[in-house]
Amino acid sequence: MRVYLAGPEVFLADRDDIAAAKKATCAEYGMIGVFPTDPAPGALPADTDWMQIYLGNEAHIRGCDALIANLTPFRCASADPGTAYELGFMRALGRPVLGYSNAAGNFTTRNLALLSGAVHRRASGAWEDANGMEVEDFGLTDNLMLDGGITASGGVLVVNHIAEAAHWHDLMGFSRCVAHLAGMKR
Amino acid sequence: MRVYLAGPEVFLADRDDIAAAKKATCAEYGMIGVFPTDPAPGALPADTDWMQIYLGNEAHIRGCDALIANLTPFRCASADPGTAYELGFMRALGRPVLGYSNAAGNFTTRNLALLSGAVHRRASGAWEDANGMEVEDFGLTDNLMLDGGITASGGVLVVNHIAEAAHWHDLMGFSRCVAHLAGMKR
Repeated sequence: MRVYLAGPEVFLADRDDIAAAKKATCAEYGMIGVFPTDPAPGALPADTDWMQIYLGNEAHIRGCDALIANLTPFRCASADPGTAYELGFMRALGRPVLGYSNAAGNFTTRNLALLSGAVHRRASGAWEDANGMEVEDFGLTDNLMLDGGITASGGVLVVNHIAEAAHWHDLMGFSRCVAHLAGMKR
Repeated sequence: MRVYLAGPEVFLADRDDIAAAKKATCAEYGMIGVFPTDPAPGALPADTDWMQIYLGNEAHIRGCDALIANLTPFRCASADPGTAYELGFMRALGRPVLGYSNAAGNFTTRNLALLSGAVHRRASGAWEDANGMEVEDFGLTDNLMLDGGITASGGVLVVNHIAEAAHWHDLMGFSRCVAHLAGMKR
């Protein structure tokens, strides 16, 4: 089984170390981890560097049997949007998607913190921000589409409250996902 | 042709008005617009409200021939993560995906503004934030996965610099997407 390792760790200077660690965990379960920056010989050629990266990632996802996403909030209350895109992509292919987050709180509490008090209650009781947009309040980990896709595919969304300094390097949640995926295979 | 109308307008109090306006534009081109909150009789039953919404949206996307996403940055430098998820989902189905944004700047300039100076240059010249994460710098509208999926599908990503107060109601970019989609059909 090939597993696509989605997440914003591609932006880390030591991303190769993260990739190696994740692949080692996959190997313990007889799986092959595929990191976004791995060579993608099957990808179509592109005119630009960024499009080549896109086509490489897409080829990787299509060539994998499952996806494990790092959904730790990235520079806001939500996961990295590229990771969210990839999660939806794999779910549409009908393959298992799993995720983990190393951040405390839930989507609602993080949004309320981000909006730092610039919210009010609608007559319905729902929170609304200064732009007239409701704040999702289901107590989920992220936007319901992300939690929902994982649930619908039979995956798991593991949340651990990791200290901020280790947010991008703690792989406890990732390991739990790999173990869950191994259980799904049987 | 059925078009899924993705975007965070579902969070607006007047979302029904936005839905009606978008559907009217679609109808001008002989298309049927499908809004996320439309009834989804084909969806599987769920145990919770949020999962019912998820399954409804997924059924809508699977039942549509194309997707137009409002990618205006939502509470951070990027599009709404639920919308990013849906964009990836439809792209994986091999159908056209298009998008529009009503915000000025590009992904890089918006991230640098969000990080308000807490960045430095790596030896490579790339921007890095205080968490050691690189700031994507391709001059794109959002994370390259979003721009890339639209490009790969033959869609268009329309950017207009709309005044903040009209960010969530101006439909000029949406109309351009519908016109482009109509041209793709022929």
